[in-house]
Order: sequence, then structure tokens, then C-alpha cells
Amino acid sequence: MNELPQNAFHRRPDLHVETEGEFAGWRTWTRDSFETHNGPFWHRMDENGQVRCAFRVEKKHLNGMRNVHGGCFMSFADYCLFAIASSVLEGPGVTVSFACEFLDAAREGELVECEGEITRAGGSLIFLRGVLKSGERSLFTFSGTIKRVKWKKPAGTAAVAT
Amino acid sequence: MNELPQNAFHRRPDLHVETEGEFAGWRTWTRDSFETHNGPFWHRMDENGQVRCAFRVEKKHLNGMRNVHGGCFMSFADYCLFAIASSVLEGPGVTVSFACEFLDAAREGELVECEGEITRAGGSLIFLRGVLKSGERSLFTFSGTIKRVKWKKPAGTAAVAT
Repeated sequence: MNELPQNAFHRRPDLHVETEGEFAGWRTWTRDSFETHNGPFWHRMDENGQVRCAFRVEKKHLNGMRNVHGGCFMSFADYCLFAIASSVLEGPGVTVSFACEFLDAAREGELVECEGEITRAGGSLIFLRGVLKSGERSLFTFSGTIKRVKWKKPAGTAAVAT
Repeated sequence: MNELPQNAFHRRPDLHVETEGEFAGWRTWTRDSFETHNGPFWHRMDENGQVRCAFRVEKKHLNGMRNVHGGCFMSFADYCLFAIASSVLEGPGVTVSFACEFLDAAREGELVECEGEITRAGGSLIFLRGVLKSGERSLFTFSGTIKRVKWKKPAGTAAVAT
């Protein structure tokens, strides 16, 4: 994670690199209200150039059964799409489709990690897939599609969801 | 919304009926940390016996482009699955799969509403689909599958995500 083969991680002006605690050296984006409210979600590049994402389960992430809420897994997975795509995205993008399967539960205090990959990076669309795990236990599989968009001022209407 | 043909809405002990403001008469569930943290999300039964769901977009729901975050749409849609299924669920359930498409953006202050239906209610699985709208504008389409589960104490491991 010390050498970044691409400079993609540096493109967003709201990048924050953590300096303390268990996620020291990990990165997150700070201008996103929803992710800040639900995170912190983290990403870094490992020694093999693979993007890794993670978050530590807190009480606010749980459903009424005291397991991680499905919406939390999906929100984190949406974050992961953009972290994994960051080396090829080189600008703003929006999620246009997403699909997932819920395999197992996670509880408060667990570390949820993502392994994922770009399955195709086209001129307009980037296809990705991934799996969320707690240790060796698979929790959630997902795939998603990001569409590259041209940046418009906030008054514009083209951008859908990041 | 005054006459409820089923008593399903009454089964969960954490049901809250709002008494004030624009959502007076609407219902929500309160024991769900993630939904409470991200909501309030609301549901009610309309005069035709159809379940309606809604939330008002706040700053905490937005992404860095100031549109509703994809994870927020997905979290609300997961809530909608259980609200729409409540008349046939009659006990706890978990989401086992979910898929969606992002059609258009929503901004702070907009009212996001859900129309949805049960496409099949089986003995084990309940299949549903829906669309999120702002006024007449379609924002997001989704489908999901809920699996009925037997209730276990929180120490159990079967329940995945509500």
C-alpha cells in the first residue's frame, strides 16, 4: 500500500488518509454526506496492487436482529465499486446497476472486508464484481456497473448516484 | 390507510405511528439501528390496500454530487421490501437477493415514494419488485427476494439481513 502504481487515488480533492488507529494508512472520501454518516468506509491498495476495502461493524450498522443491515452491506459495496474502479475511472461516475446476494450475517465488532475486481473497463461503462468477507467467511457477493459522466455543476441533472 | 385488511402491520412490537408533521399517520419500525440512523423511512396502507413508502431527502442522504446516494436508495428499497411483504410475511425474514437500476437523480428536499408489489409469495420465499419516484419522475427500479426464517435469539447465526 505504500507505492501506488496509478495516481487515481489522488484525483479526488476530498481524499483523507487516516493517521491513527486500526485504519492508519487507509483512505476514505470526505465530501460524501451519506458515506460519512454511515462509515467510515476505508480503502487502500495492497502490496499486489489490489484495492482493499473495509469497515468495522458498529451498532449503527445493525438491523433489528442485531446483524448488519442489508442496506449497510449494499451501501458499503457501492463505496467499494468506486474504490476498485478508481484506477481507471479518472473522473466522476455514477452507479447505473447493482445486484447482490446475502450469504451470511455479520455482527457488531466484526471487520468486514471487500475483495473485488474490474471485469471490464470500457469507454463508457465499467463492470465490477466483489465479495464481502469477515475473516474467511463470505457474507455478500455483488456486481455493479459504473457509467463515466462528464462533470457538471451541482445545478446539472445528469449525475445520478456515486 | 384507515382500514387495514390484514393485521400484519401490528405484528412487530417496534411499530411506531407518527402523530405529527407531513408523515402523520405513517408508520415506521424503531428497533432497527441502521434504518433509524438513515431514516426515518415511512410506510402506510393507502385506500386501495396498497402499501406506500416514502422519505424526505435530507443532507445526510446525499453523495458528493449532492444527489441521493446509491446506497441510500438501496437501503430505502430494502425497507420497502419488508413493508410491502408485511401482509404475507407474518414473522421474521431476511433479504437473500436484490437487484436495481439507477434511472435518475433526486436532490435534497424531494419526497421519494415507492410503489411496489409482491410478485410471488411462496412458503419459503417472497419475491417483490418496485419503483422509486419523485412525483411522476422514476428514479430507481428494484427487485428483491425475502426468505422467511424462524426466529432465533440474537446469539443465533441464521438471520442475515432485514
